[in-house]
Amino acid sequence: MNPFPHKHLLGLEDYTASDITRILDTAESMREVLDRPIRKVPTLRGITVVNLFFESSTRTRISFELAEKRLSADTVNFSSTGSSLSKGESLLDTVQNIEAMKTDVVVMRHRSPGAPHFLSKHISSVIINAGDGAHEHPTQALLDILTLRQKFGDLKGLRVTIVGDIAHSRVALSNIYGLKKMGAHVKLCGPATLIPRAAETLGVDITHSIEEAIADSDVLNVLRLQLERQEAGLFPSLREYQKYFGLTRTRLEKADKPLTILHPGPINRGVEITSDVADSEHALILNQVTNGVAVRMAVLYLLCGAKQES
Amino acid sequence: MNPFPHKHLLGLEDYTASDITRILDTAESMREVLDRPIRKVPTLRGITVVNLFFESSTRTRISFELAEKRLSADTVNFSSTGSSLSKGESLLDTVQNIEAMKTDVVVMRHRSPGAPHFLSKHISSVIINAGDGAHEHPTQALLDILTLRQKFGDLKGLRVTIVGDIAHSRVALSNIYGLKKMGAHVKLCGPATLIPRAAETLGVDITHSIEEAIADSDVLNVLRLQLERQEAGLFPSLREYQKYFGLTRTRLEKADKPLTILHPGPINRGVEITSDVADSEHALILNQVTNGVAVRMAVLYLLCGAKQES
Amino acid sequence: MNPFPHKHLLGLEDYTASDITRILDTAESMREVLDRPIRKVPTLRGITVVNLFFESSTRTRISFELAEKRLSADTVNFSSTGSSLSKGESLLDTVQNIEAMKTDVVVMRHRSPGAPHFLSKHISSVIINAGDGAHEHPTQALLDILTLRQKFGDLKGLRVTIVGDIAHSRVALSNIYGLKKMGAHVKLCGPATLIPRAAETLGVDITHSIEEAIADSDVLNVLRLQLERQEAGLFPSLREYQKYFGLTRTRLEKADKPLTILHPGPINRGVEITSDVADSEHALILNQVTNGVAVRMAVLYLLCGAKQES
Repeated sequence: MNPFPHKHLLGLEDYTASDITRILDTAESMREVLDRPIRKVPTLRGITVVNLFFESSTRTRISFELAEKRLSADTVNFSSTGSSLSKGESLLDTVQNIEAMKTDVVVMRHRSPGAPHFLSKHISSVIINAGDGAHEHPTQALLDILTLRQKFGDLKGLRVTIVGDIAHSRVALSNIYGLKKMGAHVKLCGPATLIPRAAETLGVDITHSIEEAIADSDVLNVLRLQLERQEAGLFPSLREYQKYFGLTRTRLEKADKPLTILHPGPINRGVEITSDVADSEHALILNQVTNGVAVRMAVLYLLCGAKQES
Repeated sequence: MNPFPHKHLLGLEDYTASDITRILDTAESMREVLDRPIRKVPTLRGITVVNLFFESSTRTRISFELAEKRLSADTVNFSSTGSSLSKGESLLDTVQNIEAMKTDVVVMRHRSPGAPHFLSKHISSVIINAGDGAHEHPTQALLDILTLRQKFGDLKGLRVTIVGDIAHSRVALSNIYGLKKMGAHVKLCGPATLIPRAAETLGVDITHSIEEAIADSDVLNVLRLQLERQEAGLFPSLREYQKYFGLTRTRLEKADKPLTILHPGPINRGVEITSDVADSEHALILNQVTNGVAVRMAVLYLLCGAKQES
Repeated sequence: MNPFPHKHLLGLEDYTASDITRILDTAESMREVLDRPIRKVPTLRGITVVNLFFESSTRTRISFELAEKRLSADTVNFSSTGSSLSKGESLLDTVQNIEAMKTDVVVMRHRSPGAPHFLSKHISSVIINAGDGAHEHPTQALLDILTLRQKFGDLKGLRVTIVGDIAHSRVALSNIYGLKKMGAHVKLCGPATLIPRAAETLGVDITHSIEEAIADSDVLNVLRLQLERQEAGLFPSLREYQKYFGLTRTRLEKADKPLTILHPGPINRGVEITSDVADSEHALILNQVTNGVAVRMAVLYLLCGAKQES
C-alpha cells in the first residue's frame, strides 16, 4: 500500500478527501479490534507517544491514551501543571527536550492556534493536534465524520448544521473543513455574537434560526456551550440561549423526519441540548466516543507507518 | 471451576462467606506471584482498567494500579482534577463516556455513598468500589480479613474490635460485613459522637471504653482519626482523643496476651496509635499493605474471569 | 561480569571512577538501543519502579519514566499533590508502605538533603536519588560526564567550570564529585553570594569573574538561575546578573578556542545564557537530554542486576 502522504495531523485543512477516507477505512478495522475480547494489537510496540496537554482535558486525553495502549505503544503523560513551562521555559524548548529523549509521536493540546504547526517546523517527531485554541481539533472532526459515514454510508449531499458557539470552537472549524471535503453541505447556526464574520469565506451557509436549521438539515452537530462565554457578555443568559438555540424534542418534532444528533461532549444537559434529545436513539453521542478511540488508533497507525517508511 | 457469581464488587454486604473465601484463596496465589523475582502474569493482557478517583488517594490508587499492571492489564488513570466533572458534567455522563471507549473495568472512588451502585445499573463495565463516602471500601476489608486469616487460620469466634471514628469510616462498615460473615465477633469502640446509633442494628457490640475493648478482644483494627473531624466539633482535641482512645503500649500491656493490631493507614503516630505499638511485632500494618495488592489482583482476576464467561 | 558494587545510587560522593566508567559504558549500549527503530528491550520485565516525586519536575520525571519503559519495567507515578503526605504521614511511613506493595526500585526527588540516604537505611528497595534539595542529583552529573566523554574521549585534565548559583544547586555538587573522580579540573564561577564557603574544601577553584572562567576552561556547565533567588536578595536583579555572569557570544569569542557549553535545563534564555550561545554547535544541551535517558537506563539496569544477584 502507498505510504500515507502526511507526516503530521495538524488539521484537516490540508488533508484531501482521499486522506480522510483512508483514515476512516483504517478506523473501521480498528473498531473491529475494539469489539474483540482482547482489544490490543502489537502494531506500535516500542513506539513512544508523549501526550502533551497544556490545557486540561479528560476525554480527549484518555481517548488518545487508550488508542496508544491498544496499539501497544508506550505512553508518557505530560500536563502543564508542575511542568517546566511554569518555570518560564518556551514551548519550543520544552518540546525539543522531549524529542531529544527519542520520543516518536507528540499528541498536543495547546491554547494557542498554530502551536502544533509551529512545532512541526522545528522537531522531527510526528505531531498530532489534539486541539489548538479555537483553531482545529482534527480527530474530533474525523470521529464525527466516521459516525456519519456509518449511519448514512456516504456524506455526499448530506446536510449538516453545526449549532452553537462557532466562534470559540475548534470542533466547528475542523468539521467544516472535513465535511466539505467529503461532499456535505455545511450550515452554521447560532447567535450572531458567536459566529465569526469570516465564516462566510469558508463556503458555508449561516442562519441565526434554530427552526430553519432543523427544517433544512439531516444532521445537527450541537456544540457544547462554554459557560464562561456568558461572563464575557457574548450571550445574555443560559435561559436566553436555551430559549433561542437549545435543542429540544418539541423543536425537533417539527422536522419532516428524525434528525441525527451529534455532540462532542461533555454535554450541558438542559442548556444546548435537553436530556430527552441527548438520550434518544437519534443521538449518536456515545457512538462518537467509541469512534474516537478507533479514529485515533487509525491516525497513529498511519502516521507511524509513514514515519517508518521515510 | 464455577464462574464467580458476581459481576461487580460494590461492597461486602451482598457477598457470602463462600465468595469471600474464594477471593482470599485466590489472593494467596497472588501473594505467591508477589514473592517471585518477576512479579507479573499475563492473565489480564488486553483488558483495560480505568482508575476513576474522584477523591485523592495515594495508597489505594497505587495498590490497584500495581495489581492491574502485575496482571498485565492496561491502566488509565483519571482524577477529578482537570476533568470534565469540573465542567459540570454528570457522573453518569462521565462514566458512560469512559465505557464507550471500550474499557472493561472501572475502579472507582467517590465521595457519595452508593455512587458505584448507581453506575452499575447503567453501564456494562465491571465496577470495583474503591471507597464510596462513608459507606463501603470492600477491598480494604478483604485485605484485613486475609491478614487475620494468615495469622489465625480461621476467623470463627475471633474477637475483633474496630476502634475510632466509626461514623465516618468506610473501612468500618466493610469490615463489619466481612468479619461477621466469616464468623468473627465484632465490637466497635469509640466516643459516642463517632459511633452511629444505627450500628446496633448490624449485630455488633459497642463500647466506649478502650480498656474494655482491650480486655475482650483478640484483634484491634484501629482506624485513622480524620483530623478534620475535630474542626467539626466531634471530639474536643487530639490530646483528649489520645487520652481516652489512643492505643499505647501501657494500655495494651494490661491484656492477658498480646493483641494483634491492624490499621488501614496512613497512621497518625501519637494520635490514634503510638509509634511503639505501630512498629511492634504484633502490628501487621505492612502485611496489610502487601495483602492489599494480592486481594486486588484476586478481585480483578475473578471479576474479569466472570465477565469473560458471561 | 562482576556484580555492580552498589545497591543504591544516592549520590556520586561514594562512587569510584571505576563505578562511573561502568555506568558510562553501559549507557553507551543504551544509546544504541535509543537509536534503533524499536527502542525497547525486555531487560526489566516484571520489575516495578515507583517514581516518587515530592517536588515537581517535568524533564527528570519523564526521562526516568522513558528509561523505565524502554527497559520494559512497570512504572507507577506518585507526586506529593493529593498524596498521604498531605495527610501528615511521615516520609518513612509513605515509603515503607510503597515498598510493602513489593516494588523493586524507588526513584525519588525530595526537597530535603539526605532524604534518600535516610530511606536507604530503612527499606530494602533499590533507591535512585533524582535530586535531594541542594545536595546531589547524580544522574544529571552522569549524563553531563557522558556527554563530555563523547566529545573529548577522556576527562583527565579537562578544565570544567560550573557557572552560576552553586549554593542552591544539586547539579553542581554531583558534578564536582563526578568530574573530579574522572580526573577533570573543576572551577566554580558565580557571585560570592551564590558560592558556598565550604566549596573550597571540595578541591575546586573559585572565581567570581566570568571572563577568567572563559579564559581558563574547556567546558562551561552553566546552571539555571532560579529566579526566586532574586526575591531572597541573593543578587540584585536579572539585568545585573546577566551583565556580570550571563554567557554571551561576545564573551565567548574572547577565548582562544570554542568552549563546549552544557546546561541542565530548563534554560532561561537571555538570563544565564543567550539564545545564540544555547543554540550554537558548541552547546550540547540536547545531547545531554538524550544521554539522560541512556544514563538512567544504565543505572536501572546495573542496580537491578545487582539486586537480582544479591
